[in-house]
Amino acid sequence: MNFESIDRVRPLLWNGEFLRILDQRLLPHQQEYIDCRSAQDVAEAIRTLAVRGAPAIGIAGAYGVVLAATKVSAERGQVALRHIDATLDLLENARPTAVNLRWAVQRMRAALSNMGAKWSSELEAEAIAIQAEDLAANRTMGRLGAECLIQGARVLTHCNTGSLATAGFGTALGVIRAGVASGRIAMVYASETRPWLQGSRLTVWELLQDGIEATLIVDSASAYLMQQGKIDAVIVGADRICANGDVANKIGTYAHALAAKAHGVKVMVVAPSTTVDMATVCGADIEIEQRSGTELTHIGGTAVGADAASIYNPVFDITPAACIDFLVTERGVIEHPDAEKMAEVFSRLSST
Amino acid sequence: MNFESIDRVRPLLWNGEFLRILDQRLLPHQQEYIDCRSAQDVAEAIRTLAVRGAPAIGIAGAYGVVLAATKVSAERGQVALRHIDATLDLLENARPTAVNLRWAVQRMRAALSNMGAKWSSELEAEAIAIQAEDLAANRTMGRLGAECLIQGARVLTHCNTGSLATAGFGTALGVIRAGVASGRIAMVYASETRPWLQGSRLTVWELLQDGIEATLIVDSASAYLMQQGKIDAVIVGADRICANGDVANKIGTYAHALAAKAHGVKVMVVAPSTTVDMATVCGADIEIEQRSGTELTHIGGTAVGADAASIYNPVFDITPAACIDFLVTERGVIEHPDAEKMAEVFSRLSST
Repeated sequence: MNFESIDRVRPLLWNGEFLRILDQRLLPHQQEYIDCRSAQDVAEAIRTLAVRGAPAIGIAGAYGVVLAATKVSAERGQVALRHIDATLDLLENARPTAVNLRWAVQRMRAALSNMGAKWSSELEAEAIAIQAEDLAANRTMGRLGAECLIQGARVLTHCNTGSLATAGFGTALGVIRAGVASGRIAMVYASETRPWLQGSRLTVWELLQDGIEATLIVDSASAYLMQQGKIDAVIVGADRICANGDVANKIGTYAHALAAKAHGVKVMVVAPSTTVDMATVCGADIEIEQRSGTELTHIGGTAVGADAASIYNPVFDITPAACIDFLVTERGVIEHPDAEKMAEVFSRLSST
Repeated sequence: MNFESIDRVRPLLWNGEFLRILDQRLLPHQQEYIDCRSAQDVAEAIRTLAVRGAPAIGIAGAYGVVLAATKVSAERGQVALRHIDATLDLLENARPTAVNLRWAVQRMRAALSNMGAKWSSELEAEAIAIQAEDLAANRTMGRLGAECLIQGARVLTHCNTGSLATAGFGTALGVIRAGVASGRIAMVYASETRPWLQGSRLTVWELLQDGIEATLIVDSASAYLMQQGKIDAVIVGADRICANGDVANKIGTYAHALAAKAHGVKVMVVAPSTTVDMATVCGADIEIEQRSGTELTHIGGTAVGADAASIYNPVFDITPAACIDFLVTERGVIEHPDAEKMAEVFSRLSST
């Protein structure tokens, strides 16, 4: 099998005029697209999770900048930037935790600022480059990550980190695609990922498109599976990686990582270098997004639970660097990441 | 507040002719009752989770024996027992993991076997006694458990262990009722408990009947809350407690316990002595019930996830004794349970 050739699921399609977004709120039962024709449309799609996944919202943000600029006539990029500055702020802050969105919008800002008369086409090319670089990074990470696994590995992944969450192929799911293709991975477990069910709605569905059969479990069953010796590695993505190697990722990642540490199971974090934020010293400095309690009490629009007096719904958590065995980016694999190792690989990012 | 006087939620009502069961599959949105008029009806209600909770299914099983016996005319209990033996096997095996069901049916068998001409009324009295003893045990455990907590404790409970799961008051939820009443507990978190959502459907609802406001979280958020120092103790029930102190309880209990151990959070298991099975040496010897994968893919009858290639749905897990700080039964509190301490308190149960 060569999963690199597979291109069935694409959450983000740019056609030169608008950004077509696969509405992930409706998956897997409906495959519908939203056409975003303004930066505001893109910000709304990001805010409401029509598009989600740290790299994917970064790419969407980049195209949002292009859309914002199409409304502007100006001779130089720097002038155009002044006109759309407030709109880009809105876009950049559509969601707080994943750093990729901020990174992509800032990269687009910086590029636009330096562009001359042809800024319009160059800006579009910059967004296309961001998307292409993400796909290339994922393929590199897939290969690097799979090489860290034992032969016949039984792996658990959390949330969705596949083509749906990226430009394609995926981060953690890219490693799983590569590992299954090479025969190194023998078994894939997917945790359902409450409250938004990215695992059962997206990951299981996406893998089935490639003919990979994942076994679905409830999130809290992972510790029990590890106790029974059924899992060799936990492979997850990241929404932000700090200068000390701490990782913000989907709520439940830390619980899986703690269980892994208690059972000698490897923990692998897979994310492009655009997810690394050397300006964030450690996990405690990351703003963790809180979302509506209805994500717990309602599923598919139907009330499932009691009217709770109170709901606490942080949608990310922090996995300390000490829990991580392999940090995989397209720049290579860092084993047992810490501030020193991070600085060696990513120090030139700290100034951005 | 005196929660001992509160009697609003009762899952099991015996009226001398049939057993009325509050259908927990429909809570909290509908409060409907099922009238069980035969042991087969009771077995079906247990098997389908219309009634659930280890002590509650034990009590239901006891009344199931009474119902089985009403169909029989015999002069002596021992003769009656022979007539209903196969039916009692069915009842006893309606669910495999909780030992209370087996214990209750065996106690009823043994009692019936020794009864003379008045066996019919005596058998009913035995079932009523089992129910009354459970309620009394819960009140004792509530007091004992609450005394182990620090003042102002912020506690997390998993699944539902309240009046709905017992004869009344509850096991872990009894400790929480008692602790809130005495002012010792300042904050209650309830994890939603996938896949069956006992936390969000039952625990939050049951506590609200008493005016106790629990804060609902997804199961996998507990580790993150503990990392933030927001939880002082995890308080759970049990479906079976082994001779070495290992505990089988709702899937996710072990994950909470591992996270607690990593953060210095106390773990308290609360269960009546009828949940102790000294004949089971350790957790690995317990049969863990596997239930249908539709519990994950469908919520309230609606398909929520993708058609998964495979689903693994163990509904209990094993928490090793080493993770447990307080094991609370009506006989007292065992700190850091092990085989020796268990034998001291429960050895006379080993022959049953």
